[in-house]
Amino acid sequence: MSSRVWFSTLGFIVWLCCLGPVQGGKVLVVPVDGSHWLSMKIVVKELFHRGHEILALVPESSMLIHGSESYKTEIYPVPYTKEELDQKLNSIKDNVFLKAPGIKELFHSLQHFTEFTAMQVNGCERLLNNQSLMTRLREEGFDLVLTDPFLPCGSILANVFSIPAVYFLRGLPCELHLQASQCPSPPSYVPVFFSGNTDIMTFPQRVTNMGMSFMQAYMCKLLYGHFDDLVSRYLGNITTYKDLLSHGAVWLLRYDFTFEWPRPLMPNMVLIGGINCAKKAPLPADLEEFVNGSGEDGFIIFTLGSMVSNMPEEKAKQFFDAFKEIPQRVLWRYTGVPPKDLPKNIRLLKWLPQNDLLSHPKAKVFITHGGTHGIYEGICNAVPMLIFPLFGDQLDNVHHMVSRGVAEKLTPHDVTAEKILAALNKLIHNKSYKQKMAKLSQVHLDRPVEPLDTAVFWTEFVMRHKGAAHLRVSAHDLNWIQYHSLDVIAFLIIILLTVLFVTVKCCLFWTRKCCKYGTAKRKSE
Amino acid sequence: MSSRVWFSTLGFIVWLCCLGPVQGGKVLVVPVDGSHWLSMKIVVKELFHRGHEILALVPESSMLIHGSESYKTEIYPVPYTKEELDQKLNSIKDNVFLKAPGIKELFHSLQHFTEFTAMQVNGCERLLNNQSLMTRLREEGFDLVLTDPFLPCGSILANVFSIPAVYFLRGLPCELHLQASQCPSPPSYVPVFFSGNTDIMTFPQRVTNMGMSFMQAYMCKLLYGHFDDLVSRYLGNITTYKDLLSHGAVWLLRYDFTFEWPRPLMPNMVLIGGINCAKKAPLPADLEEFVNGSGEDGFIIFTLGSMVSNMPEEKAKQFFDAFKEIPQRVLWRYTGVPPKDLPKNIRLLKWLPQNDLLSHPKAKVFITHGGTHGIYEGICNAVPMLIFPLFGDQLDNVHHMVSRGVAEKLTPHDVTAEKILAALNKLIHNKSYKQKMAKLSQVHLDRPVEPLDTAVFWTEFVMRHKGAAHLRVSAHDLNWIQYHSLDVIAFLIIILLTVLFVTVKCCLFWTRKCCKYGTAKRKSE
Repeated sequence: MSSRVWFSTLGFIVWLCCLGPVQGGKVLVVPVDGSHWLSMKIVVKELFHRGHEILALVPESSMLIHGSESYKTEIYPVPYTKEELDQKLNSIKDNVFLKAPGIKELFHSLQHFTEFTAMQVNGCERLLNNQSLMTRLREEGFDLVLTDPFLPCGSILANVFSIPAVYFLRGLPCELHLQASQCPSPPSYVPVFFSGNTDIMTFPQRVTNMGMSFMQAYMCKLLYGHFDDLVSRYLGNITTYKDLLSHGAVWLLRYDFTFEWPRPLMPNMVLIGGINCAKKAPLPADLEEFVNGSGEDGFIIFTLGSMVSNMPEEKAKQFFDAFKEIPQRVLWRYTGVPPKDLPKNIRLLKWLPQNDLLSHPKAKVFITHGGTHGIYEGICNAVPMLIFPLFGDQLDNVHHMVSRGVAEKLTPHDVTAEKILAALNKLIHNKSYKQKMAKLSQVHLDRPVEPLDTAVFWTEFVMRHKGAAHLRVSAHDLNWIQYHSLDVIAFLIIILLTVLFVTVKCCLFWTRKCCKYGTAKRKSE
Repeated sequence: MSSRVWFSTLGFIVWLCCLGPVQGGKVLVVPVDGSHWLSMKIVVKELFHRGHEILALVPESSMLIHGSESYKTEIYPVPYTKEELDQKLNSIKDNVFLKAPGIKELFHSLQHFTEFTAMQVNGCERLLNNQSLMTRLREEGFDLVLTDPFLPCGSILANVFSIPAVYFLRGLPCELHLQASQCPSPPSYVPVFFSGNTDIMTFPQRVTNMGMSFMQAYMCKLLYGHFDDLVSRYLGNITTYKDLLSHGAVWLLRYDFTFEWPRPLMPNMVLIGGINCAKKAPLPADLEEFVNGSGEDGFIIFTLGSMVSNMPEEKAKQFFDAFKEIPQRVLWRYTGVPPKDLPKNIRLLKWLPQNDLLSHPKAKVFITHGGTHGIYEGICNAVPMLIFPLFGDQLDNVHHMVSRGVAEKLTPHDVTAEKILAALNKLIHNKSYKQKMAKLSQVHLDRPVEPLDTAVFWTEFVMRHKGAAHLRVSAHDLNWIQYHSLDVIAFLIIILLTVLFVTVKCCLFWTRKCCKYGTAKRKSE
């Protein structure tokens, strides 16, 4: 399989090189900070290598977006500091290790999340008001905005500069991306985010799903209130963020159907799941030695993503205690205080080459928080997963993998050494996890075009044709009543009732007439 | 553009070669006769060249399916002769030149069509009852059935032999393919076949569209009655053709969104529009000389597809009279009696290399019946079209092209030399037709993978993974009420009404209690 994929990649590169870049392509990249940026950066670098001129707009207080040789950056001032940003982010992460998430916690998280995005919306507003920078950007004559619509600045700029936008995302909170692209999502078999349902639902699950799909409308208003305000202030003809998003030329979606439940798609949705696990590098010598020394038992990779490298000491102790009991070696990205008697089979690191380690044949289990980047690295390397979801989409992602029989779940608030041990033993000794994961991996990797090449192709397509108008459904021009044909149904019912009424009246009239005539005839006789 | 496409094709071939064929792939091809076979044959030949063993099941009375060096054929006896088949087909074609199609003609056509398919269904039944052949086919151990579901035999065989089926089609009458694949088609912006609507509809058009979408349910029962009978007789657990079709692994659909209106798709739908216009050969010397001699005025290609090479003499006269008046040369596939004074600018042929002629830079207009093969050859070669729809999907196809501003329409029953001349002059002298067609062509040809390679990839994918289960939506397991969540809505309404009822009752009870208490208190005071 693997040699086939390498050969096919090679062939595709030949093909893509022959296609040739769009001459003079100028791309304005408006990224979202954090893990969102990690996979978008791959596309940005590839676009640069294919000869496009790239300018990334970066807020001065940012976490993971830094300058690069591959692209130019324009750093713009924002009305918050990095510390304030970290603090807001930490307020989202806090408590996940301490309490089971209930309704109260959910609303707390929602509030923190709204405050976190509101802060960045303010940053965006500062950019839009920065007249000199805006004039300079307009004069650049960009062909395209490549943006993650998790934040609104990119799509606003595309509208202001009248250039097409390509969206790069996994999905949007309260599934705004589906609403904005007019993608049908029948709640009878398309599980709502966070519902905990799969695509096969019992009647009670369908009731929950339907209830939650109603709730999403309310959630959307709460979550995107700041966005809607900003949009309506800056773009006179567009009043909501959903309307603005509907003008996107192409949606590059970081999933495929080895992870997502099969569902309808729209013509301008392009699936690029697994874009982040294409490139592999050899391991550093010390890591190579460590993992090779694990023998037949193999090793475990343990990270909680780019944003979390620590956890409360008493939680970490549960992991140390569990790892003591297993023969596997463990590589753990952990920046907390290590115990004095650190078991010899554990190596703690400040950073680890996750994808390179997962591709090692001795990798047995991947302990992850369940972000989609990590999940796809697990899938493409066929490593069963122990998922430890913390917040955001991770709480939903975990269901996708557990229900496919390729992962086990741990909840952070009540994790114990026994639970960890039990889950690891299942994943390592019950062969079905590995077998199912291997099948899933084969299906995932068997594709006509690699995800990165697909993303690049459609980005360049939009530049070549100044959009992708032929893929835009005309449902965007209909209001809710028209889309659901409620006016037509009402009209047809009125017609039907009128016909019925007239028919009944006529029948009654003629019946009465006949009766009268009969009576008169009988009388005259 | 063209060199880019050639280079990209070359690169893709390198890539596809690297993929390597599925070892020992055995494909049972169950084709549909007539023009349906022409593009399927391209995939069949390519599969053969990639090392697969192919067996095509051919009824002994067939029109266009013949033996080949590229694939084996198994000819099975059927209870009708070629003459009977031709006669039934002619009864569909008859009258199209004489009368405008009204409701009566529509039902006549429907009746002829049902008789035509019923005849072939009988042929299929004869095959299914041919025990020795069925045993032999079963023992072959095929990996896949590649079939056109316009007729039911292929999908029945796939079910009987428990092997996956790949469907190859443009669409099915009464849009059964959309129903069978559970593809949402909101009638507010997805025009119903034959409605004459585009994707942008006025209120009256939406009313018609909705009305026609209701009518389709009735039409489906009429059209597929024979199919349903056959399916329920041979497959105990499946009772309708729609249910049987829903088990298809992948739908290879011969369109894309340069022709079709943008609409939702399902994960197992793969678009391969334009698959028939990839290969081009040099023109025969006499044709090359004739078209090169057309000078700046260029030439016109005129064919009515593989099934119609003639027309009533008085209709043909209109064309001869019109062609007399223009400076363009005309190449016409015509087997009728030529007039004595055949103008020098016309050359009549029994067959012509349509795609090769269309790709000639001097090609000005393509006069076609509007079958999708011809339309896609027009699109990929960027030649404006004069469409002369005769029957079947042609009556709908023409709207797609006319509304895009790349074609004009003529109706066969009232065609005159003046109308032909006026249409040709518009197409040749109004530059907008050519400009719009050139743009459409550029968009159509700008794709990451060529349609033939896409079709081959997904056919092999299904063989490699014994299906494409991960792309099958679970909507297939729901009944109509469940799919539309009507049970859930009824349940929620009952809950809501109960809560309302109990609340109102409680309020009334307490109001009465308070009133009584107040009155009693006042009385006691």
